[in-house]
Amino acid sequence: MRMTQMFIPTLREDPAEAELISHKFLLRAGYIRKLTAGVYIYLPLMQRVLTKISNIVREEMDRSGALEITMPVLCPGEIWQKTGRWDAMGPELMRINDRHERPMVLGATHEEVVTTLVCGEVRSYRQVPLNLYQIQVKFRDEIRPRFGLMRGREFIMKDAYSFDADQAGLDVAYQKMVDAYNAIFKRCGLETVMVESDTGAMGGKYAHEFMVVVDTDGGEAIILTCPLCGYGGNIERAESRSLTTAPAKEAARSRLLADTPGAKTIEEVSAFLKMPSQKLVKTLLYRAGDKFIAALVRGDRELNEVKLANNAGVTGVEILDAESVMSLTKAPVGFAGPVGLNKDVMVIADEEVAEMTNFVVGANQADKHYVDVNLSDVRIDKTALIRAAQEGEGCPRCDTGRLIKRRGIEVGNTFKLGTKYSVALGATFTDADGAEKPFVMGSYGIGVTRTAQAAIERFHDDRGIIWPLPIAPYHVHLICAKSDDAQLVKAADDLYADLTSAGIEVLYDDRGDRAGAKFADADLIGIPFRITVGAKGLAKGAWELKRRDSATSEDVPFSEVVARLKSQIQ
Amino acid sequence: MRMTQMFIPTLREDPAEAELISHKFLLRAGYIRKLTAGVYIYLPLMQRVLTKISNIVREEMDRSGALEITMPVLCPGEIWQKTGRWDAMGPELMRINDRHERPMVLGATHEEVVTTLVCGEVRSYRQVPLNLYQIQVKFRDEIRPRFGLMRGREFIMKDAYSFDADQAGLDVAYQKMVDAYNAIFKRCGLETVMVESDTGAMGGKYAHEFMVVVDTDGGEAIILTCPLCGYGGNIERAESRSLTTAPAKEAARSRLLADTPGAKTIEEVSAFLKMPSQKLVKTLLYRAGDKFIAALVRGDRELNEVKLANNAGVTGVEILDAESVMSLTKAPVGFAGPVGLNKDVMVIADEEVAEMTNFVVGANQADKHYVDVNLSDVRIDKTALIRAAQEGEGCPRCDTGRLIKRRGIEVGNTFKLGTKYSVALGATFTDADGAEKPFVMGSYGIGVTRTAQAAIERFHDDRGIIWPLPIAPYHVHLICAKSDDAQLVKAADDLYADLTSAGIEVLYDDRGDRAGAKFADADLIGIPFRITVGAKGLAKGAWELKRRDSATSEDVPFSEVVARLKSQIQ
Repeated sequence: MRMTQMFIPTLREDPAEAELISHKFLLRAGYIRKLTAGVYIYLPLMQRVLTKISNIVREEMDRSGALEITMPVLCPGEIWQKTGRWDAMGPELMRINDRHERPMVLGATHEEVVTTLVCGEVRSYRQVPLNLYQIQVKFRDEIRPRFGLMRGREFIMKDAYSFDADQAGLDVAYQKMVDAYNAIFKRCGLETVMVESDTGAMGGKYAHEFMVVVDTDGGEAIILTCPLCGYGGNIERAESRSLTTAPAKEAARSRLLADTPGAKTIEEVSAFLKMPSQKLVKTLLYRAGDKFIAALVRGDRELNEVKLANNAGVTGVEILDAESVMSLTKAPVGFAGPVGLNKDVMVIADEEVAEMTNFVVGANQADKHYVDVNLSDVRIDKTALIRAAQEGEGCPRCDTGRLIKRRGIEVGNTFKLGTKYSVALGATFTDADGAEKPFVMGSYGIGVTRTAQAAIERFHDDRGIIWPLPIAPYHVHLICAKSDDAQLVKAADDLYADLTSAGIEVLYDDRGDRAGAKFADADLIGIPFRITVGAKGLAKGAWELKRRDSATSEDVPFSEVVARLKSQIQ
Repeated sequence: MRMTQMFIPTLREDPAEAELISHKFLLRAGYIRKLTAGVYIYLPLMQRVLTKISNIVREEMDRSGALEITMPVLCPGEIWQKTGRWDAMGPELMRINDRHERPMVLGATHEEVVTTLVCGEVRSYRQVPLNLYQIQVKFRDEIRPRFGLMRGREFIMKDAYSFDADQAGLDVAYQKMVDAYNAIFKRCGLETVMVESDTGAMGGKYAHEFMVVVDTDGGEAIILTCPLCGYGGNIERAESRSLTTAPAKEAARSRLLADTPGAKTIEEVSAFLKMPSQKLVKTLLYRAGDKFIAALVRGDRELNEVKLANNAGVTGVEILDAESVMSLTKAPVGFAGPVGLNKDVMVIADEEVAEMTNFVVGANQADKHYVDVNLSDVRIDKTALIRAAQEGEGCPRCDTGRLIKRRGIEVGNTFKLGTKYSVALGATFTDADGAEKPFVMGSYGIGVTRTAQAAIERFHDDRGIIWPLPIAPYHVHLICAKSDDAQLVKAADDLYADLTSAGIEVLYDDRGDRAGAKFADADLIGIPFRITVGAKGLAKGAWELKRRDSATSEDVPFSEVVARLKSQIQ
């Protein structure tokens, strides 16, 4: 494609609306434009990237045996009411009344629709397994859309839904999708880590996220992974095996009240009492609705609020403010403790705390702590794993690995839904034994637009994008260095024709601009290979070939250019 | 694809919801399912058809130089307010308020969005011509959605928008699109007729529709075409050249009042007075808002209400009821005439009437007509072409053709928009002369889902669909006649593998059903070629090959089957 016939509105300045580097480059290199908050137009270069990603997704989904369909954007509200997501999804779910005042939903995901479809058509265990997928626009009215395509209100997803007769069938379907996802991201040139995750509003009990690992602010999620066995967990959910030696168990001593003037933090108490933080227990106070919860973790640990909430049987927890702490414990923040704590407070202790002896806790009095506290001194309602896993701790799955902390961008997710949707919508089949049973379902998403931006967040330098070849908008950026030199223009035109007929995708900069501007745009746009047709090359009989991801270039004899590029792109 | 691994829910019974044969077959053959009124799920077979049509559209659009983008479904309401279409489109335009109560529109077409995009990015005459297109879901809240994909509320369109510096540029862009459309429909296996049409709510002054010609109820539009020069017109707009000899001009005689008891229709008056209907003038009375209009056409002609409204400068006309006719003319229906007509009535005469002498009109008295009326006897406010063109009349463009009446399904349309949108949205560029000018625009649509159904309405028999090869979901339907005969199953499996590796798309009926049910499903689904692997064939050494559009079949020796089919599908 000649750039004079293309539409690539590049920008010289960093756009104010963008925070992430990937968002900046998408705008500056002319891939997208914002229409309104969280809603983007995909320009011709972006369209090509999205088509390439979609084609890879489609090929691997087809290979897995999934069948492509397209479900509507407009979904009747009533089926969302039946599954409870009409309420559960809150204002993120976009709703519209049609001209007859019937409530409709703009599809955010399609569990309700696909279950309704299958309910009417699939009646026998012989007709499963069935996996239906689509690549389609989705809507979520994010309260604060930002980061470009990362958190938009309208975006493109591949979503798939599996239907099986039993849990064993779901397990097989799930593994097929995991394999397909690994293949898809690998083919896109993206290394991903698969981490265990929470199921959130989707329901179900078992879920994974596929994360592109990055070192930038775009990595919104913190993940812990084991480099040996491949275990991975979202920080909100990851487990770990402690490698630090727990303090040895001692014979219980009698509890003492100690003055700890002004010592509120673990560090301060530890320094004042000259005791290691492993001998201290943190007491963190939370509110969940009208319930109060105290979480106890060892002094050198962090609490994981998601695990706490799950173990408390609530949907979320909110840390108490100073005033509420004072009213509940009669002491300022920093001196709360489980001894003699108000009976209305549910006390949940981390597993490690349950192993401790002669430890230190706040005394619920200003400037005082108890030392030599033991389990017999405190009321504990539940013992559970509520501490956050940390980098350097042991892998919970293998014996030898240690967890590494990384930042990730979620590009895919998989859920074992079970029968939540089939039961709610009455989607049953007749099993081999003649019994009517609900389908056992899974649901599997890939953010197509998000994957494109994640690739940029992962692969760029300060000059622009560095696309992985399989999803680059073109293979080769051909630059005619002097567009007023007829001999060079002829050479570039000929090379363009030769490359194109060899099946190589070429973006040909045939504009009248100076070479410097063309090189800058090429770096910004990020096509993997650059060929420069210039005066030096003409004299030498070789054109300059440069990889976007390399600082150096090489001269390739005229006659070898096409073959060289052809071998590189296959 | 093996049918046991596919999802094709065929139905034995005609679904009650469908009126058109194409809609029935789409449902019965398992191509679509209704989710809610006017909103459909496209099942795997349909997905393949839509992909094939989309690919043909994309290739021809790319070839024309248009650039593919994707614009959002969610469009800010304010740009629709600026162009006036927020009001003009009425309740068909689906609207939604986001969580911040900002009004949004679900894109019905994208003139507003694309003009907003180009407005911000294209500043110079050097950057045009530019043609941006997308293949995308669209929304129109039809008051009575019906006919399946023909008149849905959510559907897939290709829409393109051209931007030029002047009218001459638009003319070139328009012709490129006309050429592309002809190529697209031809490649889809569909003969289309291009007819002049009204622009409606789209604005602009020049428009065409591309019609698939059918003989069924699905042909919602009546068109007149010239088989010689290719002229075509929507019946609402078509022109014609009269071939009947107009009555010779005579010296004007004096008007007489004649008794015509009970003679109200042209036939009755003509019979009673023993005068040919060409000597009579029909007077038709209409209301447009608070205006009254009388239309005069020759007795053997029909009035075209659209032409009348256009010439009266109103958006539509409504025929007067009997009571209003009585109150306006003091006579019952059947006796209205232009002589002495109430002065508040605007009188528009067809061009042919202006050539008549000594003609007959109603006398505005019960049971009376005037004979030997001449133009000097009547007040005519405007003379214009307001009669309907009719089959058999002369082509208005060429000298020799005669118009043929056909029924058509609109699958594409093209509009010369001019500057309506660029002026409303301030989309200007700097021209070569330094002046700031608005872009001159065109807009071009193809109904992708509609084209699929139009193909069925055009090509079917009473057993099912007969797909044109280029848009058929598969090339070949392979049937194993006895799935409990291991030798036949082996032969069918092998042939399936051979055909597939030769790049032929095969739907392989490997189900356990009896042969009759398989043949019935094959006819219903409508794949162009059918191969039967049966016991007779095995004995003969040749498999039965049948074209779906032919009543007869032939036996093709085993070794020739792949080559034969390969030659047929290319």
